[in-house]
Amino acid sequence: MRKIDQMIANIRPLDEGAMEEARRRQDNLTKPQGSLGQLEVLSIQIAGIKMHARPTLHHKVIFTLAGDHGVTQEGISAYPSEVTPQMVYNFLRGGAGINVLARYAGARVVVADFGVASILDTHPDLKDKKIAMGTRNMTEGPAMSREEAIRSIEAGIELVEEELPKGIDIIGTGDMGIGNTTPSSAIASVITGADVAIVTGKGTGLDEAGWRRKVEVIEKAIRVNQPNPKDGIDVLSKVGGYEIGGIAGLILAGARYQIPVVIDGFISGAAALIAHSLSPEVKPYLIASHQSAEPGHKKVLEYLGLKPLFNLDLRLGEGTGSAIGIFLVEASLKILNEMATFTEAGVSEKIENT
Amino acid sequence: MRKIDQMIANIRPLDEGAMEEARRRQDNLTKPQGSLGQLEVLSIQIAGIKMHARPTLHHKVIFTLAGDHGVTQEGISAYPSEVTPQMVYNFLRGGAGINVLARYAGARVVVADFGVASILDTHPDLKDKKIAMGTRNMTEGPAMSREEAIRSIEAGIELVEEELPKGIDIIGTGDMGIGNTTPSSAIASVITGADVAIVTGKGTGLDEAGWRRKVEVIEKAIRVNQPNPKDGIDVLSKVGGYEIGGIAGLILAGARYQIPVVIDGFISGAAALIAHSLSPEVKPYLIASHQSAEPGHKKVLEYLGLKPLFNLDLRLGEGTGSAIGIFLVEASLKILNEMATFTEAGVSEKIENT
Repeated sequence: MRKIDQMIANIRPLDEGAMEEARRRQDNLTKPQGSLGQLEVLSIQIAGIKMHARPTLHHKVIFTLAGDHGVTQEGISAYPSEVTPQMVYNFLRGGAGINVLARYAGARVVVADFGVASILDTHPDLKDKKIAMGTRNMTEGPAMSREEAIRSIEAGIELVEEELPKGIDIIGTGDMGIGNTTPSSAIASVITGADVAIVTGKGTGLDEAGWRRKVEVIEKAIRVNQPNPKDGIDVLSKVGGYEIGGIAGLILAGARYQIPVVIDGFISGAAALIAHSLSPEVKPYLIASHQSAEPGHKKVLEYLGLKPLFNLDLRLGEGTGSAIGIFLVEASLKILNEMATFTEAGVSEKIENT
Repeated sequence: MRKIDQMIANIRPLDEGAMEEARRRQDNLTKPQGSLGQLEVLSIQIAGIKMHARPTLHHKVIFTLAGDHGVTQEGISAYPSEVTPQMVYNFLRGGAGINVLARYAGARVVVADFGVASILDTHPDLKDKKIAMGTRNMTEGPAMSREEAIRSIEAGIELVEEELPKGIDIIGTGDMGIGNTTPSSAIASVITGADVAIVTGKGTGLDEAGWRRKVEVIEKAIRVNQPNPKDGIDVLSKVGGYEIGGIAGLILAGARYQIPVVIDGFISGAAALIAHSLSPEVKPYLIASHQSAEPGHKKVLEYLGLKPLFNLDLRLGEGTGSAIGIFLVEASLKILNEMATFTEAGVSEKIENT
């Protein structure tokens, strides 16, 4: 049995008993029932995932996966591909947005090369999961082979499994890859059925003409490759990216090992579409951190039936939204665990039948 | 010169130089310009408030002000008024929602009695700013005298001034008062001009009939008192509350002493309407933490021209939204201060004229 199928075969539904117990506790805390809104909902979801009515987060891990994209040859990005390895080094030195926000949220960052188009210097904190030196130009044929697509997902699963001994109570997903909003838009269009123009944005800074070219490039890639929307691995191989496959693997492994997975923005959302097409059972394990400024993200979250926790017009990726999402998840668990109940605090409850 | 006028006379516009310098730094950090959305905007606002291009937050203070409301005689709340003092004791013991979230955000909580309708046990951490034993029933005449309204605002100012020697880098506002969505809806209706039914919600748990009664009670209070929408003190005295006046005072003092003020939900929003009617110059000092589940809050924020940072369907008050808002403000400053610039990190910048 392949690794992907092993994961899928072992995803369990959330633990209703733990959720019920957490819900009862939320209802007995010194606040009107439901008055902490999504924070209450989140805490109950985490209880179900972790099979524990009062779960805590000790080990918070954000995985930032890097890959390059052959389609950048078509001029669809405002930044050159050399920025991908430069940013990987920036992550390793701790100077990037994700480093700052992860530190603040108390999460560690695991950086992995899934397909950067250059040989990276080895570094003790850099995980080498390179599938190839960047994907191929998807306007001329598949971005990668079907076997490479499977290997990228498996490498994401391995990444989680390698970290399990150190402890992982929550996963945040993140990406780095110049040009990777282009495959993400392609995936979003193919799987959700939305028009390319609806799910395509200006990435990190295209002008109007650049945006039009990007839409044409994506339409061409879909026309040339004819990905099968019902087959996530086919979609990934034809119009995806290695880091996107890797994030899909993180999601499958999170669901398998009963770890909540906080997904970042548009690229992580595209990866969630791939994971979800392989197994819809992953959904209860997902927490959508934010509504990205990328227009396609809204369609992705609607398709997955996920409600984002916040909208700060972020469009950086790297896992920056996940870091803030993890903070909110932890806040929800602090509420569940640390607030006093009506009885403990000697506070009167609601008047019934006023 | 009265204390309120002293505050108003000394509110300065934000420091454009510090904002420009912070904006330039944001644009040179290793991310596409603007890609951290509202976090970038926030950091620049704080730079302007604190007249420093790289501000930091050491002392974070959430003020939770308590008061009771005579209008609860009309049966507009699902909880009895005795809950107000019970919750004050809960705050002092650290068991309430605000205690949990403030601890997590690294903020201290200052609890103050502005008008609880019972004699509270003295406690070293409880500030006594009691104006009276609760407001009067506003359906029968003014909730308080004009002099009491002024004193409640002044007491809010004093609260900030008393904490200044210990250091305050950011203020979060919070409230506790059974029935206080009722005066807040009245204030929102009078100042924004919106219909009472539009700005009235179900508070902490009314049913449909309870909601209709609440709307009628508010309409009656406005009809009986005829508050002058152009005179914030008149509105506060006729249909307000002591803790609402106190929060208006916190806002005036924050603006005067160049401290950013993170406002919580609907009750704090009503207080911001009062402060804003006394001096629109307070606006640049305000940060709206969240969009409350109370329907009137949307109207309040639109009127003030403030965009909330998040929407988690919170409706607890106490400053719980402010605590999360303070976390986001601090995250924005960590980004500003700790991220590497393109030059420092050796990362290539955007390609111009592609």
